[in-house]
Amino acid sequence: MGDSEREGFCLWLTGLPSAGKTTLAREVGRLLVGRGWRVEVLDGDEIRKGLSADLGFDRAGREGHAARVGFVAKLLARNGVVPIVALISPYASSRARARAEIGRFVEVYVSTPIAVCEQRDVKGLYRRARQGLIKDMTGVDDPYEVPVAPEIRVDTVDRSPTDCAAFVLAELERLGLLARPPP
Amino acid sequence: MGDSEREGFCLWLTGLPSAGKTTLAREVGRLLVGRGWRVEVLDGDEIRKGLSADLGFDRAGREGHAARVGFVAKLLARNGVVPIVALISPYASSRARARAEIGRFVEVYVSTPIAVCEQRDVKGLYRRARQGLIKDMTGVDDPYEVPVAPEIRVDTVDRSPTDCAAFVLAELERLGLLARPPP
Repeated sequence: MGDSEREGFCLWLTGLPSAGKTTLAREVGRLLVGRGWRVEVLDGDEIRKGLSADLGFDRAGREGHAARVGFVAKLLARNGVVPIVALISPYASSRARARAEIGRFVEVYVSTPIAVCEQRDVKGLYRRARQGLIKDMTGVDDPYEVPVAPEIRVDTVDRSPTDCAAFVLAELERLGLLARPPP
Repeated sequence: MGDSEREGFCLWLTGLPSAGKTTLAREVGRLLVGRGWRVEVLDGDEIRKGLSADLGFDRAGREGHAARVGFVAKLLARNGVVPIVALISPYASSRARARAEIGRFVEVYVSTPIAVCEQRDVKGLYRRARQGLIKDMTGVDDPYEVPVAPEIRVDTVDRSPTDCAAFVLAELERLGLLARPPP
């Protein structure tokens, strides 16, 4: 029950574990809220509890989870909200599906190299994966398909989250998404 | 990232199969859109495809599905949207959980008696349940726990959907939910 003037758009942050997706999502969210947008950060880990407690981290589980997140993002975006998804979403097919379903879709590739991600290792997942304690770990024993043509590519190495977020806002300006006032 | 001025509220329509929940949800949605609200109808059957294709209709499946719908309704309501849920939601515990999670929650009991629902039998479910072709059918071989203290109770017998929707709007006025302008 909306028209395009009242629609938001979806920012979909993809990247390796510990690439900085959640931090960047929150910073970008803060900037957009400051400009009058409604923002909902859909963090992969948090939203799993609400929507996908039944799903694992194998390919089917990851695809199913991404599909549900995409469904929720669609409902938010078409009601004038900007969902900012922070999800590893390692498969190109999952991202393509979300793009097709949501329509106004901005793929943001958080391109932090694995060596840097592994140094950060915010949740200790790389360490545990290297020790063989967990499996299906993206970047270790599970693939990450690098986005071929993301709308935005963010390099977080040697740049603060604030700088990275400002860069994303500038890119959104360039894409014309902030030209109109928030719905 | 919202404050109460920018929040919506959730209408949660519960009742037997063929009680008229989906029809009423759409009519109420139309009236609210006419008053400038953003509305998202979350129809139980439709949203199952997007969120809960893995779940069945046994108690655990219904509770899990209602929990996911409640999670999505919460995200919408806190961003200024009015989610209108049309879901049998036969268990009082599921409805109480959604109420607690969402906060601004209006339980609407669509009280159509089973004899009338069975006559309507929009999807032929009663017939098939009586023939033993399907099981876990609410009202036939699965319980429906009648709401004890719903905010609104709608009697659809001998009243048009338009009249029923106007009644719901009047009730929302009475509850003070339409006093402020839509966010």
